[in-house]
Amino acid sequence: MDKIKIVVDAMGGDFAPLNDVSGAIIAAEERQESLEIILVGKEKLISDELSRHKVKLKNIHIVNADETVTMTDSPVDSLKSKPDSSLSVGINLMKEKKADAFVSAGNTGAVMTASIIKMGRIDGVGRPTIGSLFPTDFGKTMVFDVGASVDCKASHLLEFAVMGSIYMKYIYNVKNPSVGLLSVGEEKSKGDNLTIEAHELLERSNLNFIGNVEGRDVLRGKADIIVCDGFVGNVILKFAESVLDVIKGKFKSYAAKGFFNKLWVGLMYGTLKNVVLKDFDYQEYGGVPLLGVNGVTIIGHGKSSPIAIKNMIFKAEEMVSKKVNEKIRTEIGNMKLKTG
Amino acid sequence: MDKIKIVVDAMGGDFAPLNDVSGAIIAAEERQESLEIILVGKEKLISDELSRHKVKLKNIHIVNADETVTMTDSPVDSLKSKPDSSLSVGINLMKEKKADAFVSAGNTGAVMTASIIKMGRIDGVGRPTIGSLFPTDFGKTMVFDVGASVDCKASHLLEFAVMGSIYMKYIYNVKNPSVGLLSVGEEKSKGDNLTIEAHELLERSNLNFIGNVEGRDVLRGKADIIVCDGFVGNVILKFAESVLDVIKGKFKSYAAKGFFNKLWVGLMYGTLKNVVLKDFDYQEYGGVPLLGVNGVTIIGHGKSSPIAIKNMIFKAEEMVSKKVNEKIRTEIGNMKLKTG
Repeated sequence: MDKIKIVVDAMGGDFAPLNDVSGAIIAAEERQESLEIILVGKEKLISDELSRHKVKLKNIHIVNADETVTMTDSPVDSLKSKPDSSLSVGINLMKEKKADAFVSAGNTGAVMTASIIKMGRIDGVGRPTIGSLFPTDFGKTMVFDVGASVDCKASHLLEFAVMGSIYMKYIYNVKNPSVGLLSVGEEKSKGDNLTIEAHELLERSNLNFIGNVEGRDVLRGKADIIVCDGFVGNVILKFAESVLDVIKGKFKSYAAKGFFNKLWVGLMYGTLKNVVLKDFDYQEYGGVPLLGVNGVTIIGHGKSSPIAIKNMIFKAEEMVSKKVNEKIRTEIGNMKLKTG
Repeated sequence: MDKIKIVVDAMGGDFAPLNDVSGAIIAAEERQESLEIILVGKEKLISDELSRHKVKLKNIHIVNADETVTMTDSPVDSLKSKPDSSLSVGINLMKEKKADAFVSAGNTGAVMTASIIKMGRIDGVGRPTIGSLFPTDFGKTMVFDVGASVDCKASHLLEFAVMGSIYMKYIYNVKNPSVGLLSVGEEKSKGDNLTIEAHELLERSNLNFIGNVEGRDVLRGKADIIVCDGFVGNVILKFAESVLDVIKGKFKSYAAKGFFNKLWVGLMYGTLKNVVLKDFDYQEYGGVPLLGVNGVTIIGHGKSSPIAIKNMIFKAEEMVSKKVNEKIRTEIGNMKLKTG
């Protein structure tokens, strides 16, 4: 079997190229038989970083790219103004079939835009989507969309549900994943124009649709997949990410009030971290998939650790080996709705 | 000065009439000189509950209402099918100027619908709004709207900002409250059609508009007021409410794993509660105001404690004494936008 080739944007994220290269090394070392990794970015920086690690791995390669898209660059503008960025060069490698997947912890909007424009949408997909994992007591819930598509139509939410179900089934081995529609009440009649229409479509699909779910159900694992407009999904994802900081901040202020407080927080912290905090640490989840494009793109948090980068690479590998895109193409192509 | 008359829906909420009556008694006792409280609901139940408390307060009265709107009744249907509900009778008292304000921990949708339909909107207000307080490290942030109005237009978000600024100024004494627009990025160009248009209007207003804020900024107190469509606001409010349960649940599971775990959680719990959990306890905030109607309605959580009911009554009193509605009427009437 041919090795799966994954491009890693070595210039992506707040700790580039440090964490990107370290993550790539861990992944390449663990899977020497199945993976080829291509680090894209400033050659000198990358090779210096590689040599610092003192490892010789035959399955790591470098492709030079002179420019870098920063975290604050405009997604659309950077695509035109920086044709030789690690991002553009990396996605071009995937487009030219010299690689199977692309992984980046860089500017989310830019990675998304470049992937969609360069790779194109899968036939029948109106809007691509990004899904993010939320921790629940019972396992995992993935919310689609968390920011790829705003001002969605009902048919887009249906597509998110189809693509999300396939992802959940093949990547997380969930049989017949349940799909919830995020709304402001459980009844079919509750919601805004978009969700009332989407409810109708989802009911007529062959998905395992369990009806409307509410904001409080996201962390309770009421559905394996929750679909919503990317505006709403993005707001709750960022809200959820902030919970960790808020809790940490509160304990820090408490500890600062005196020596015994500090001692006491120190004693509790290990338990706190294991019981609650780690679940709210969204940086460790290892990237979110962009679904609906003719290619495999995994986007990571700007603060991704080397382990997060490694997890992103493994997730990309799985999407390729399990042929997730082919399944999406077939399901979207064959989708029929029951007559209402 | 005339006493302010507040109607309390004695049949509202999960613990009616118990908590409603207890809360009313605490409020009436604390403010014997300034408040008259009218408990509306099944007379026998209320008077039994009152006599259980063995207090004689001249400023508590009962008005009978034979029907009760349940938490699952349809807001619009219940208005027609239960004309003699505590909710309808109570709001009618306000409409007939026999009372100044109405307080209920009952079915939120029904309280809102009845208030809007019976009292009517303030001239110039397209959509009423409900605001909810979120705890921050630095003080308070109020989000408008959290569920009164979905499918909003940009002009509605501007109205929310005007009404919210007045509420924050007079009820929480915040000078020149800052207004943030909830979106998916900080830049003006980021957002959906609604927020991009609303950004323009807010910029042209004379409010203290600080630009877009994101989901992560809600708990960080970046703005005194954050405006958004009621769909998004409702989803994040319910999400935030669930955080408390999720954290409690995680500690419960941890404690269940063994005797020492249980002991350890028992030791930590007091600190946990004081430092973090109490801030996420949205039941204790004492109700949310419905702004934009010709009347004062405070809506409480179904699980409101007697203290929460008391706080709702005091909030209603303040809205009346500080003439919040008159200020809204004037500001909305005089609103002028700078030419763009």
